[in-house]
Amino acid sequence: MTYGHLGSILKRRIETKFRQFFIEPFHIFEMESSIVTPGKVFEASGHVDAFREPMVQCAKCKKKFRADHLLQEQIGLSDTETEKLGLPEIANEIQQNDIKCPECQGKLQRPKYFMTMFTTTIGPYSESVGYGRPEAAQGIFVEFKRMYEVARERLPFGVVQIGVALRNEISPRQGLIRLREFTIADIEFFFDPEESRCPMLAEVEEDTLHLIPAVNKLKGVEEPVNIRVREALQKNFIREEWQAFFMVLAKRFLNELGIPDDKQRFVEKLEWERAHYSSQGYDQEIFLHRWGWTEVSGHNCRTNYDLAQHMSHSGVDLQVFKEYEKPIRTEKLVVEPIPSEIGPTFKKDSTRVVAALKEAVVKDVESSLKENGFFMAGPFKILPKHVKIVRREIEERGRRFIPHVIEPSFGLDRLVYAALEYAYSKREDRNILMLPRDLAPLQVGVFPLVTKNGLPRKARAVQKMFREVGLLVEYDEAGSIGRRYARADEAGIPLCITIDYQTLKDDTATIRDRDSWKQIRVKLEKMPQQVCTYFLHKNDFTHISGKNTCQQ
Amino acid sequence: MTYGHLGSILKRRIETKFRQFFIEPFHIFEMESSIVTPGKVFEASGHVDAFREPMVQCAKCKKKFRADHLLQEQIGLSDTETEKLGLPEIANEIQQNDIKCPECQGKLQRPKYFMTMFTTTIGPYSESVGYGRPEAAQGIFVEFKRMYEVARERLPFGVVQIGVALRNEISPRQGLIRLREFTIADIEFFFDPEESRCPMLAEVEEDTLHLIPAVNKLKGVEEPVNIRVREALQKNFIREEWQAFFMVLAKRFLNELGIPDDKQRFVEKLEWERAHYSSQGYDQEIFLHRWGWTEVSGHNCRTNYDLAQHMSHSGVDLQVFKEYEKPIRTEKLVVEPIPSEIGPTFKKDSTRVVAALKEAVVKDVESSLKENGFFMAGPFKILPKHVKIVRREIEERGRRFIPHVIEPSFGLDRLVYAALEYAYSKREDRNILMLPRDLAPLQVGVFPLVTKNGLPRKARAVQKMFREVGLLVEYDEAGSIGRRYARADEAGIPLCITIDYQTLKDDTATIRDRDSWKQIRVKLEKMPQQVCTYFLHKNDFTHISGKNTCQQ
Repeated sequence: MTYGHLGSILKRRIETKFRQFFIEPFHIFEMESSIVTPGKVFEASGHVDAFREPMVQCAKCKKKFRADHLLQEQIGLSDTETEKLGLPEIANEIQQNDIKCPECQGKLQRPKYFMTMFTTTIGPYSESVGYGRPEAAQGIFVEFKRMYEVARERLPFGVVQIGVALRNEISPRQGLIRLREFTIADIEFFFDPEESRCPMLAEVEEDTLHLIPAVNKLKGVEEPVNIRVREALQKNFIREEWQAFFMVLAKRFLNELGIPDDKQRFVEKLEWERAHYSSQGYDQEIFLHRWGWTEVSGHNCRTNYDLAQHMSHSGVDLQVFKEYEKPIRTEKLVVEPIPSEIGPTFKKDSTRVVAALKEAVVKDVESSLKENGFFMAGPFKILPKHVKIVRREIEERGRRFIPHVIEPSFGLDRLVYAALEYAYSKREDRNILMLPRDLAPLQVGVFPLVTKNGLPRKARAVQKMFREVGLLVEYDEAGSIGRRYARADEAGIPLCITIDYQTLKDDTATIRDRDSWKQIRVKLEKMPQQVCTYFLHKNDFTHISGKNTCQQ
Repeated sequence: MTYGHLGSILKRRIETKFRQFFIEPFHIFEMESSIVTPGKVFEASGHVDAFREPMVQCAKCKKKFRADHLLQEQIGLSDTETEKLGLPEIANEIQQNDIKCPECQGKLQRPKYFMTMFTTTIGPYSESVGYGRPEAAQGIFVEFKRMYEVARERLPFGVVQIGVALRNEISPRQGLIRLREFTIADIEFFFDPEESRCPMLAEVEEDTLHLIPAVNKLKGVEEPVNIRVREALQKNFIREEWQAFFMVLAKRFLNELGIPDDKQRFVEKLEWERAHYSSQGYDQEIFLHRWGWTEVSGHNCRTNYDLAQHMSHSGVDLQVFKEYEKPIRTEKLVVEPIPSEIGPTFKKDSTRVVAALKEAVVKDVESSLKENGFFMAGPFKILPKHVKIVRREIEERGRRFIPHVIEPSFGLDRLVYAALEYAYSKREDRNILMLPRDLAPLQVGVFPLVTKNGLPRKARAVQKMFREVGLLVEYDEAGSIGRRYARADEAGIPLCITIDYQTLKDDTATIRDRDSWKQIRVKLEKMPQQVCTYFLHKNDFTHISGKNTCQQ
């Protein structure tokens, strides 16, 4: 996948807009970690076990295919149906439906799982396995403690990472839609599960979402319900307020990329469709002319799954502490480790054992010790001699807990594709890329009417004037002015300024609007500021004129 | 390597500045290609053979080390000296100097080469080798034809790619300075070797550079010569004008990141120190307190090496055509392939053979056929029967040639480090991060003097007002105003605005300068525009006041 000049700028503008929309207004912080990640991280996160797809190979031509995709294409199973199938069921479907190799009609071998993370070796030791990260989220979980400090130890807060992710797809297709290397924007929003209200809900609860909740999907209903957010929460279609909040933001964000409400919907994942870390998940889908309904973001409640996993694998305490307004004195059953017994048994693991016991639910320890004669604290086998279970009066100054996580996760390349598709339009046989003005890769075109009599020099000076206020300006003197306008329309340049003979006389120039093809003549000295204001969405084309000042 | 919130913004601001400095003012275009790259690309580019480092393993503890680094550390050889050594010489030095494992004093085994590209498999086939790109340049060369079209087929032009590169270092150290994963900014600037003048030379030729040219280095002179660019070109210290041009830009760019001239120098690479593709190369080095003189960018003349390699490996013609003002009629010796002989011998490779012959120098073909009875056109063995060498009158409408390349290549993480080191300062026991204003991650701090009587609400409104003009604004109400200023100084926030009781009366507020700690009181309504102008470097702190208008 390669972006050219305008494409790479467009992608960057979408990233910038994403930041303005999701990060800056909220208690959300950014970070950047590595793509190639030590194997242990993805062992802890569960990806090494779960990040795999069924693959089938042709016995004759040796080509390999996604087994589930073959079932979808050849016998019309849905995504939902194939997600449910294990390897034996897939083998069964292949046999019963006599599915052959789509390339050579050869016989297909038994399906196998293929791990879809890229694997490599970090450093000169072949045992130091590294994976290309399939999501940016794990980089965030691994740095949770530091980012919590950045947030001055206040919940809720979010961390975002925008960066490259890698998935070793068995057979990628569909251009920008399914890539082995793509840019992901993962927000992990951490909150206290006992104080899970979203204080900004009032700002979004009147918005209508097009939802296909799991209950309807199970009944085979494919039509979305159009429902206000408040009601969707009441009916438990969406369980967490923060999840609903980010879903609305995602909808509005796509609006600003040019995709209207009626081309958007949210589809809930059924239990067996969800990723291994998710307790509730919605896919935001938009309608694309070429690919049909296509996922552009996922909204998952990851609970405390990831932090708990990293905590138990690394032995590092990832709990946060929340002080009560007043300390509470209570009597409580507690599990007390007996150091003199734990030390000799677990040696250097003792600290991790003690940490794991702190995590354990007292009742579980008690009953397991009674019924089984041992209790498994993570990987550690605790015997009755290692612990006392006692009632203690405890002054609790606050609670320790692992925050829960709502994750909105966007595929940026798909957003680029979507923005392009929705911007593409025709008028009088000409292509116009009607990108929202703040996405347009080039913002201003500057054209000398002719390439003589000092017009190019004046145009260059005007170009410089616009550059100095931070705008991206295209200078073009090749071909007729009509051809240059047409080129600018195709490249989606919102405003074009033509320098003509009158410019030399009175320092005015015409400015032309890409979408209406209207032109007005404006004093040059007023222009940079007017145009800046225009790109900040503070005025419209018709306001760009020497007569108005743009002082707000 | 992980960047936190402010670090990731700082890095992005340096990227933005890089674009403003190197890309936007010139005929330079941006692109973005994949990090994981099919093996063939790096076979063609020569990296599979050349991108390797000598490694030595301890027989006892099995640890592995960069053999050249051991020689540098233990017997004081310089980089220049170790670059010259092959494996036998390294083995010899280790033996003669009785160098032992630095970790356990064990005996070291014989040195070997270790390929320092990350290796993986793309897709489900184990034979589809992929490498993590060690430079962004190859992505550009592979897309040369398309980017040439983007440049409307005009030389000179440049292509830049800013992105992640991977190098599987044997033993990375030095924090941000040597990373396995880092962000690189490679500019490949293409020009006609027969018209290699830089028309913008006049803008830079009076600049002085601190150069250590190869001739001096060979004599052991470590002191740089301070020389004007014009003279450096005359003396042939720098061979290509475009290379000199970009070296000056690089120097000025580092100036703007806060590194003065006297902490910068350019050191020429000796023949055996240069990368395999380079015909002349300078490293831009800056002085860092902790690491000494440290490379931050490389400036190489890559000639037509890469395009020629890709052309011969892929069989795709990467030459450009340049029309003469008038066609030239000449008699010329030409090599004419004889299709009826080439077809049967080379079959499906025939097209590549013909392309390779087109490239060949007629005299070489003639003499090789005469002396050896064959000529090697790339990998193809041409016999006398395959070609005719004949004199023809030819009308040449123009020239076909492979452009030459000047490559300025920057390591962005090192620039982040350098900017931080040079910004770090102390005053009255307080840390101040005196970053250049356009690099500061957060631009404006907004503080309510106290958290009551409506001040926080007013401060939030002011924060919003600044956000709407695109600034990054930190709202802070925690602790005394002095503590908040101190925090802001440490985070490098250039301007802080305090909302106090007078604000509620007359809509003015104090604005405070990070570097001078001066404060002035300004009308709020004038502020956003004044502050924007300040960040565009169009006015200074003392000009931010309600009395001046910022209309330029």
